[in-house]
Amino acid sequence: MELGFIGLGTMGAPMVLNLLKAGHRVRVWNRSTAPLQALAEAGAEAVETPALAAQAEVLISMLGDDTAIRSVFFDAKALDGLRAGSVHVNMSTVSVALAKELAAVHEARGVGYVSAPVLGRVDVAAAGNLNILASGPAEALARVQPLFDVLGRKTWTFGDTAEVACAAKLSANLMIASAIESLAEASTLAGGYGISRGAFIEMITSTLFAVPVYQGYGKLMVDEKFEPAGFKLSLGLKDVRLALEAGEAAQVPLPFASVLKDNLLDGMAHGQADQDWASLSKVSDRRAGVK
Amino acid sequence: MELGFIGLGTMGAPMVLNLLKAGHRVRVWNRSTAPLQALAEAGAEAVETPALAAQAEVLISMLGDDTAIRSVFFDAKALDGLRAGSVHVNMSTVSVALAKELAAVHEARGVGYVSAPVLGRVDVAAAGNLNILASGPAEALARVQPLFDVLGRKTWTFGDTAEVACAAKLSANLMIASAIESLAEASTLAGGYGISRGAFIEMITSTLFAVPVYQGYGKLMVDEKFEPAGFKLSLGLKDVRLALEAGEAAQVPLPFASVLKDNLLDGMAHGQADQDWASLSKVSDRRAGVK
Amino acid sequence: MELGFIGLGTMGAPMVLNLLKAGHRVRVWNRSTAPLQALAEAGAEAVETPALAAQAEVLISMLGDDTAIRSVFFDAKALDGLRAGSVHVNMSTVSVALAKELAAVHEARGVGYVSAPVLGRVDVAAAGNLNILASGPAEALARVQPLFDVLGRKTWTFGDTAEVACAAKLSANLMIASAIESLAEASTLAGGYGISRGAFIEMITSTLFAVPVYQGYGKLMVDEKFEPAGFKLSLGLKDVRLALEAGEAAQVPLPFASVLKDNLLDGMAHGQADQDWASLSKVSDRRAGVK
Amino acid sequence: MELGFIGLGTMGAPMVLNLLKAGHRVRVWNRSTAPLQALAEAGAEAVETPALAAQAEVLISMLGDDTAIRSVFFDAKALDGLRAGSVHVNMSTVSVALAKELAAVHEARGVGYVSAPVLGRVDVAAAGNLNILASGPAEALARVQPLFDVLGRKTWTFGDTAEVACAAKLSANLMIASAIESLAEASTLAGGYGISRGAFIEMITSTLFAVPVYQGYGKLMVDEKFEPAGFKLSLGLKDVRLALEAGEAAQVPLPFASVLKDNLLDGMAHGQADQDWASLSKVSDRRAGVK
Repeated sequence: MELGFIGLGTMGAPMVLNLLKAGHRVRVWNRSTAPLQALAEAGAEAVETPALAAQAEVLISMLGDDTAIRSVFFDAKALDGLRAGSVHVNMSTVSVALAKELAAVHEARGVGYVSAPVLGRVDVAAAGNLNILASGPAEALARVQPLFDVLGRKTWTFGDTAEVACAAKLSANLMIASAIESLAEASTLAGGYGISRGAFIEMITSTLFAVPVYQGYGKLMVDEKFEPAGFKLSLGLKDVRLALEAGEAAQVPLPFASVLKDNLLDGMAHGQADQDWASLSKVSDRRAGVK
Repeated sequence: MELGFIGLGTMGAPMVLNLLKAGHRVRVWNRSTAPLQALAEAGAEAVETPALAAQAEVLISMLGDDTAIRSVFFDAKALDGLRAGSVHVNMSTVSVALAKELAAVHEARGVGYVSAPVLGRVDVAAAGNLNILASGPAEALARVQPLFDVLGRKTWTFGDTAEVACAAKLSANLMIASAIESLAEASTLAGGYGISRGAFIEMITSTLFAVPVYQGYGKLMVDEKFEPAGFKLSLGLKDVRLALEAGEAAQVPLPFASVLKDNLLDGMAHGQADQDWASLSKVSDRRAGVK
Repeated sequence: MELGFIGLGTMGAPMVLNLLKAGHRVRVWNRSTAPLQALAEAGAEAVETPALAAQAEVLISMLGDDTAIRSVFFDAKALDGLRAGSVHVNMSTVSVALAKELAAVHEARGVGYVSAPVLGRVDVAAAGNLNILASGPAEALARVQPLFDVLGRKTWTFGDTAEVACAAKLSANLMIASAIESLAEASTLAGGYGISRGAFIEMITSTLFAVPVYQGYGKLMVDEKFEPAGFKLSLGLKDVRLALEAGEAAQVPLPFASVLKDNLLDGMAHGQADQDWASLSKVSDRRAGVK
Repeated sequence: MELGFIGLGTMGAPMVLNLLKAGHRVRVWNRSTAPLQALAEAGAEAVETPALAAQAEVLISMLGDDTAIRSVFFDAKALDGLRAGSVHVNMSTVSVALAKELAAVHEARGVGYVSAPVLGRVDVAAAGNLNILASGPAEALARVQPLFDVLGRKTWTFGDTAEVACAAKLSANLMIASAIESLAEASTLAGGYGISRGAFIEMITSTLFAVPVYQGYGKLMVDEKFEPAGFKLSLGLKDVRLALEAGEAAQVPLPFASVLKDNLLDGMAHGQADQDWASLSKVSDRRAGVK
């Protein structure tokens, strides 16, 4: 297929490589030019503007947040590159409000808009094993499914409304954040009785919670290795805020999310913005007076 | 070994069977006599009073809560049956305060007191695959290790202070409770966007949270099958209260536990005391106005 | 002075009357024309567009929220009416983000921008007894002080930065919201022991909390007279959200505000959007299973 | 009347003086003997044991907490001094559970038991201006009303069940604690925008919240004068815990109380146990990274 791809960060770049390997032609654009050379060597065609990348059968975008999407699609006019009849698959995690707005804007231009945020980090993206949460018009979904089969191990579809897959993704993120906080609180509690964080976390992640999400964040807490961050606390705060906004729009109280927001702010106020959000364990310890 | 065993509920009974199978002699006592016959047929000796059961090299107790322990050991005088030089292994989940008190009382009588609460439900107990969290005097721990090897797949030791294993167990329970609440909130949030609880929970427990604790409680939420309860909401409230009390004694703020307590009380106030604590999903839905 | 006044709702209309009585000339504009006749009879000059009202020495605006301000000043171009050298006093309660943005936009046009939200409801406004929280350039503040003297009993100044008075106002509103919630929780607790809400609230608002804010909201709770609303729960939610956003921007965790947001959402989800926010007592009762 | 009085702390001592001035005969007992001489000079008769003090028409007790009550009435056998037909007025703030237990124990001895906790601090007690919250058997209440008229400005009665007045008092205390926390959060939020705590608190306690409870705690926050404590943070934690226990017994979720407990524990963990509970402002500031 003739593809465009906007956003070549740690997730986007390996996804493009997989698409190239699968035989697709990919025109790529990125704000910074650093990732371009490696992708060009692998066969991608670097273009000068996001609108040029958007002139494709299917455009995929993988950007950091609402602000980046607005900046590229509205201010830098990527939208103007989209051709009627094409499909834009937005794999970024964005707010439900923006998803709604984008769906309307694309529909007005005759472009199919698909939300397709993913579960999985860099290594999973590189292996083509992402879990893809997708929603959008059925026909558009069907057209891009072969691309999802390249990028992911499974596609979970959530109907034809663009913001629904976003809501699924934000709900999933809320569960990750809650897992981290529960690990932080429980291990601080155990620590109050002289149990080392390492001993508690080894036990709990070898038994009831023997999955990578707990094991990975648990290890970061035990090693106190929060930099460089796999996922920055400031981004965690953004994700929790998006979940709270989605909850507010749907009139759903989310008390765990509220606690998370306050604790993440506590972390921000103590210089942890650029640390991994596993450093919620430091917030928990700090409140308990643990040095 | 010559053993006593007090508390023949859903957990205790299969544990006794495993001990008998391993060749130990076991004198058993239970408040109600219902479980006695089956165990007697398997070779256990039923005795008339808890104090008679306590006259053993090692006494194991597996009771429901602090009140049951106080009732049997103080009021019904099981303590008086314990011989100097013997060991009492309390596998019940009790408060850190009671563990401290019991350790002192036993020490004064020359009896070794071991805390050994477990992770795992009935089927795990029957299979001898419990995870045992143990703390107590090193010598006593060493003496009872062969029994732990019969009852469990692994023993996690937490030093020589009786209440420490209790703290570890309460911390683990807090994580289970938090997992349930996070599943409840996230699926109610997804539901606010038209995603069925079943669709969300299938996705999340097939991907990031593919472990029995999430899968099992998730299934209960989806099926809305809260009775008969695997673990009653009222007992969940008790466990969360014990975690909060442990936190207070160690000066550890536990905001997730605080949310849990309020939500469990909300459930209690709506007739859910005897439902499985997975019915926290009903609290979450009710607050969001979901019928 | 030659004044413009935009926003003639329940607060704005009596404020205009007071300004007229004090001898000022006032050109007024409002989205709906209902309030215009009465004000015209009192001497105000009704104009066709907000930009015409803005052509004055001092423009005062008193609108409902950020959206209304944006709609009038940006979309309906009130901004274009402002003359260099004039002052715009925004007495609406808006977000700190919008206050910042407006200050910059006005400065670029050579217009002094003063934030001046108020404490006090309709009757207080009519009596000219508002408490005015003001911040902005010193010269602009000095110029409008005679107007504040007409409208209020006291002006509390908070320096020269526009958003600071907004932050003060949002902090004050958070205290009001907290007072309501504490009255709701405490009276539901008392109710759990058979004390009628009326008996508890009479006692507490005659003793420790004998001030109108507690007495007024307490009376609404006791009478269960939530409609017509003095201040709608949906607006209360907006105010709490603004406080949370202000907290997030300044990295200040606000756990009471977080609880309030969840409880107000619970109210929204149960059809209380248009009821007075004193109906937080219904949320509290509902969670406790009180009919 | 012939009275006994147990507990001569900062509250009890001036109350005894008022009773003496009103012409009553008072036998007094206190754990430490320090307060005895001054009271003896004023006409009180110091006795050697609490049981001797209890031999009176009416015994009044004013002790610090459940533990002190249990120690004096059960361990030190004050109960044994009470004569059938007499009345015991317990003006201490105790748990609803203890009030229930004491009511039963007294009834079995033919002694009327009245709960009568008070609102007001030392100076209010000295002036005989306490607000007395009372519940108990109607006949007993009637008999002690003349004493309440000496000690207080008003008696608020809550029926014939002993624990109900306790619940009223704990609910009132929850409102005080909430007022402090809301003042702390709001002033930290204002501080995030450069408003000094003094400026914000002066404004808010001169306008909406112009009552001693806000003014007094506000002044402590502004002056950062937390020692010697008027009311220690550790006692505040005890009161909030009692409210939470009362809530749990009546199945009433209390999310503000839950936040308070976590924040008070945060204070405890940072060495604030003996500081005034107005130092909740330090918790709020600390979480926001304010030095």
